[in-house]
Amino acid sequence: MANITKKVSWSSRADESGATGEATPLLNGAEQRPLSRQVLLSLDYDNIENQLFLEEERRMSYMGFRCLEISRWVVCGLIGFFTGLIACFIDIAVEELAGIKYQVVKKNIENFTEVGGLSISLILWAVLNSAIVMVGAIIVAFFEPIAAGSGIPQIKCYLNGVKIPRVVRLKTLLVKVCGVICSVVGGLAVGKEGPMIHSGAVVAAGISQGRSTSLKRDFKIFEYFRRDTEKRDFVSAGAAAGVSAAFGAPVGGVLFSLEEGASFWNQMLTWRIFFASMISTFTLNFFLSIYHNNPGDLSNPGLINFGRFETDIINLFVFLSFSGGLLGALFNVLNYWLTIFRIRYVHRPCLQVMEAMLVAAVTATVSFTMIYFSDDCQPLGPDHTEEYPLQLFCADGEYNSMATAFFNTPERSVRSLFHNQPGTYNPLTLGLFTLTYFFLACWTYGLAVSAGVFIPSLLIGAAWGRLFGILLASFTSTGNIWAVPGKYALIGAAAQLGGIVRMTLSLTVIMVEATGNVTYGLPIMLVLMTAKIVGDYFVEGLYDIHIKLQSVPFLHWDAPATSHWLTAREVMSSPVTCLNRLEKVGTIVDILSNTSTNHNGFPVVVEVTAGDEPPKLCGLILRSQLIVLLKHKVFVELARTRLTTRKLQLKDFRDAYPRFPPIQSIHVSQDERECMMDLTEFMNATPYTVPQETSLPRVFKLFRALGLRHLVVVNDSNGVVGLVSRKDLARYHLGKHGLEELQLAQT
Amino acid sequence: MANITKKVSWSSRADESGATGEATPLLNGAEQRPLSRQVLLSLDYDNIENQLFLEEERRMSYMGFRCLEISRWVVCGLIGFFTGLIACFIDIAVEELAGIKYQVVKKNIENFTEVGGLSISLILWAVLNSAIVMVGAIIVAFFEPIAAGSGIPQIKCYLNGVKIPRVVRLKTLLVKVCGVICSVVGGLAVGKEGPMIHSGAVVAAGISQGRSTSLKRDFKIFEYFRRDTEKRDFVSAGAAAGVSAAFGAPVGGVLFSLEEGASFWNQMLTWRIFFASMISTFTLNFFLSIYHNNPGDLSNPGLINFGRFETDIINLFVFLSFSGGLLGALFNVLNYWLTIFRIRYVHRPCLQVMEAMLVAAVTATVSFTMIYFSDDCQPLGPDHTEEYPLQLFCADGEYNSMATAFFNTPERSVRSLFHNQPGTYNPLTLGLFTLTYFFLACWTYGLAVSAGVFIPSLLIGAAWGRLFGILLASFTSTGNIWAVPGKYALIGAAAQLGGIVRMTLSLTVIMVEATGNVTYGLPIMLVLMTAKIVGDYFVEGLYDIHIKLQSVPFLHWDAPATSHWLTAREVMSSPVTCLNRLEKVGTIVDILSNTSTNHNGFPVVVEVTAGDEPPKLCGLILRSQLIVLLKHKVFVELARTRLTTRKLQLKDFRDAYPRFPPIQSIHVSQDERECMMDLTEFMNATPYTVPQETSLPRVFKLFRALGLRHLVVVNDSNGVVGLVSRKDLARYHLGKHGLEELQLAQT
Repeated sequence: MANITKKVSWSSRADESGATGEATPLLNGAEQRPLSRQVLLSLDYDNIENQLFLEEERRMSYMGFRCLEISRWVVCGLIGFFTGLIACFIDIAVEELAGIKYQVVKKNIENFTEVGGLSISLILWAVLNSAIVMVGAIIVAFFEPIAAGSGIPQIKCYLNGVKIPRVVRLKTLLVKVCGVICSVVGGLAVGKEGPMIHSGAVVAAGISQGRSTSLKRDFKIFEYFRRDTEKRDFVSAGAAAGVSAAFGAPVGGVLFSLEEGASFWNQMLTWRIFFASMISTFTLNFFLSIYHNNPGDLSNPGLINFGRFETDIINLFVFLSFSGGLLGALFNVLNYWLTIFRIRYVHRPCLQVMEAMLVAAVTATVSFTMIYFSDDCQPLGPDHTEEYPLQLFCADGEYNSMATAFFNTPERSVRSLFHNQPGTYNPLTLGLFTLTYFFLACWTYGLAVSAGVFIPSLLIGAAWGRLFGILLASFTSTGNIWAVPGKYALIGAAAQLGGIVRMTLSLTVIMVEATGNVTYGLPIMLVLMTAKIVGDYFVEGLYDIHIKLQSVPFLHWDAPATSHWLTAREVMSSPVTCLNRLEKVGTIVDILSNTSTNHNGFPVVVEVTAGDEPPKLCGLILRSQLIVLLKHKVFVELARTRLTTRKLQLKDFRDAYPRFPPIQSIHVSQDERECMMDLTEFMNATPYTVPQETSLPRVFKLFRALGLRHLVVVNDSNGVVGLVSRKDLARYHLGKHGLEELQLAQT
Repeated sequence: MANITKKVSWSSRADESGATGEATPLLNGAEQRPLSRQVLLSLDYDNIENQLFLEEERRMSYMGFRCLEISRWVVCGLIGFFTGLIACFIDIAVEELAGIKYQVVKKNIENFTEVGGLSISLILWAVLNSAIVMVGAIIVAFFEPIAAGSGIPQIKCYLNGVKIPRVVRLKTLLVKVCGVICSVVGGLAVGKEGPMIHSGAVVAAGISQGRSTSLKRDFKIFEYFRRDTEKRDFVSAGAAAGVSAAFGAPVGGVLFSLEEGASFWNQMLTWRIFFASMISTFTLNFFLSIYHNNPGDLSNPGLINFGRFETDIINLFVFLSFSGGLLGALFNVLNYWLTIFRIRYVHRPCLQVMEAMLVAAVTATVSFTMIYFSDDCQPLGPDHTEEYPLQLFCADGEYNSMATAFFNTPERSVRSLFHNQPGTYNPLTLGLFTLTYFFLACWTYGLAVSAGVFIPSLLIGAAWGRLFGILLASFTSTGNIWAVPGKYALIGAAAQLGGIVRMTLSLTVIMVEATGNVTYGLPIMLVLMTAKIVGDYFVEGLYDIHIKLQSVPFLHWDAPATSHWLTAREVMSSPVTCLNRLEKVGTIVDILSNTSTNHNGFPVVVEVTAGDEPPKLCGLILRSQLIVLLKHKVFVELARTRLTTRKLQLKDFRDAYPRFPPIQSIHVSQDERECMMDLTEFMNATPYTVPQETSLPRVFKLFRALGLRHLVVVNDSNGVVGLVSRKDLARYHLGKHGLEELQLAQT
């Protein structure tokens, strides 16, 4: 009975169900169709401390560690640099293309305004926009669907420890960059800031690995960083660099990364993230200043800068933040229903492209109609600061302000809402604009295009905030102190953004850094918090909704409050497929090939002679490691015969990282099946364990704080009785009626 | 052999040596006298999950958790409010007293300038200052020595998990507040910002516990928060509120708390900390605006506000930051030697008071001499913005600028160095000022007075930064762009501060928030980083030096890089004093009374019959718990006889928290010694464990991430073989020659 492995499959759940197409999501029971056919694996943020690893670490001198540390800084610097460059490229491309489009449409409108056949202009505009959006939607829907949307939920999941396939690939980056340019130029109600965060993360994942699997190039550098722990650290630096480039907010970027990702705050890591953020802002600034023929002027950090406000106190923001919370919740609910609808009926790529084109055309039509019926003429400023003035039916020397609001890039619109003189917009324009843009933005988020929701949220909020300011000024005739509607626009924008996305600390810092005035910190903070509290009462944040809809096993900060009555025994998956320290190759191949279980981590046990007693734990080994071992045929018998055989090194595992071949691609002959494999050297000999009686919050804390993937549950003699994986913990959540257990996919 | 306890004491080290006077510190072998006679225990940031705890948690409804959550927010709001009030009080007291002192001295000087006997003025000034400082030093040295200095190192240690006695008591707060007022008014080269952080922490500890042991009042509220984990969370909020009040930097405060304290980043906690920071700034602002007869003007956040800078680019800051790093390192080295000297020769309270008075007198004399010999007369501003102008030998309508620099509070001096017009100070004045103030500040830090080093550092840096700017302007005749020495002052201040204290991220945010201009973020950041890197090359940061000199077992962020060859087996203390699940009272009393070991945590084991095999772990119990059990006489025999006996509840433990009585105060009769105690219900049944082979970095990570106090090391059958405590891990550090093991105190 010596070599018999416990192969009993886990009860009914799969550990991180790895079989393709089997990751059935759950849409609160309402929807049982798979949202994405992606395989959702977990990442392992705990180092696999096997003998190879320890030997390498012990061999390394103090100088070696210093060099590693320096190369980490270098990588972070490069991440910042390239992220800044990409932001710069996107910005310039959007500017140039939008300029061309404006010229074409303007010329056309000018021609036809006199003739009277403006419907042709409308058609031209709508067609032009749809065509541009089509390009963006096609590359996203057909080439890289993961590049759709802002990418923030995906990056949140990655940093949380969920491996979303292809999220940090070069191809994704290319599609993302082209896609976001198309969406913005195509006049959709979107921003280019969210995609920057995703882009930064991809850049980080690429540079830190020192090779590109897509390009099939291996630069043979940074090999030490080829594991989940290190890669995660760099990806968080990349996300921070992205925020930094998008908003000119390096500190905000660091906080974003920490809020979303790093469960274990590490000071050195924080500094490196900060460094990457700084470099990113700096690079963007430097190149943009050259583009604007003003080299060396670094005063315009970030893709969006709200401009400076003069110091003043803002009152009455409680009402505004309440509205922000309510409108944000409404936005999220509408978008939730829309997403459900899309999952059900709009899942084929061509349908997705058509929907995107439809949205582009509708956006153009609505804009055009509103501009057409608008009679809000404003005099051109003395210094012609308006970049894209459209005269339309206005007198000479005037421009149509509705057209300005619709025709500008959203960034510019936000700024003009914040800073234009009182009287620039009339209330009706703002009211109609808010209404239409709200629904357009809501419809747009979730389309198969690369696009962010940050700026649209700000724009909606700025519009109704300014409207509120104007109305207030007209009701109270005190005049002077109410006469700055731009400040209400700022507060409205913060409230609306807070109501939709709900990240408080990093958002505040981002807003403050983008505003360039610390004095606004306090009101912005209060507004964001109130909006969050109000919004949370109704529905979750937009990103969380989308994460939930994709049924990602996302771990929150704490276990649900009322989960102390659950213990590891009830939570764990059991019985566990264990391997012996010296295991038959055939057994391993069979276990790995078993598509009905598809486990990714296997406790290694000391063989026991007694029947009932669970075998004693002596290590933990991963599927990926076993596959590398099988691929290199590290069998005891072969080692004996081929004396010259090179010993397997850590490098072999790194070379295979992160795309380990599937078990099906590894051929094992019938003779080889009879060989034995010695796992001692490769297993993690000191996996973290918990006793069976451990309460769920305690298990959760350990799992989350250390970024684990598997946690072995042992009895009081160190015998393996179960295994806790991410899905086991993510199942529980607090619903309206206390603790609820999600019905996870049955495989 | 059933009930025999393993009582073998640990090899030669004590676990957190608890015997009074035995915490012998180590001063790198140079100094073997105890720095402080304090007992340094650890705090337990891991919940003690025993049956009582679990029962309570399980009984609590969802609404119960909501209420707890709400009361956490309320507590944080109160913390912010009271911290703001204290900051306000300190500020007003300093202003008023300094005003009175100025009037007295000015009158005297004016009288004697004409007569020609200025030495009497000097004596008056020196005596006045010494007297004020004496009051401050006496209350610190005789009543509460822990209130000396800025308190930042103590708070860092507390958040790190080291229990420093009396650091968060009401008495400490009172002494701190009075002491800092005396130091600042007494004209020492100190700031009032560091003490604010300590004050905030004390406020937090007090409010969150809902009672004051000093006042012997128990308000019977917030009883749930009476344990280390919750208290730590509130103390970090308090520290953040302190930073926020001191600098008007709420975000900086949050980052400070996180950098120093929270090993496990928790989003809800971060928000609460942020909330406390906001409220604190708001309260301070509000009351100060009333004091300044300008209610409602919230534009002056913080005790120090650097004023607004106009946007511009600052060049040449690399040189400045190098100087900052070098000067910072020099400062720290000098202060290190001085501290060693003080530890050896100035440890009696009366000597300490005399030293403080001496420093005050020398400060006054040096200032006076320099003012006397200075001929740097500046015209009074048209609007008399100078608050304390001293005419001395200057012509009418002019004032002595050296006197301004010395006579002002340091905060005001910093601001005037930043913002005064070019030409306000002449280079010689600045040079002499830098030189003298550098040594005075260095001498002052570490005196037995409540005082901070933040502002003096800024002042030194601002002085030489401005000097550099002026010299640069005189060498380069380009004029215009170099003509703003205030910017060099800002950069110099940042460099000097970074060179002395070395906290990068939070410091940047604090500086940016205090400057009120985000555009300076990038240069300030670069300067702080460069200064840190340069300074770190020579010596550690000032706070770290003082922590080390007090031989605190401080855990850094990571284990030393080259420590992978150490395993838990080599690190742990062994053999361990274990208790049986059912233990004889006499045995427990004997173990607790054993002053040569003085352990604080005891693994509870299942009794084994075999001799050699280590007994199996089944729980962990703390000294404090055992003492409460003994005090309430929770003996098996008594429970049987007195059927009506009330069952011991969690409340009994909370009432005793945090000042558990010593074992000597508990009387156990000879009969009772023969009774048995059942520990099952009170022990933590699921302590975290590691196998013997676990590498040190892995043990360290677990310990640090979860904020543990004890970690049980087990063999492969779950038998107890050792115990890792904070001191076991803090022993190892990276020296010049690789990994070094500190010679810890032999007890």
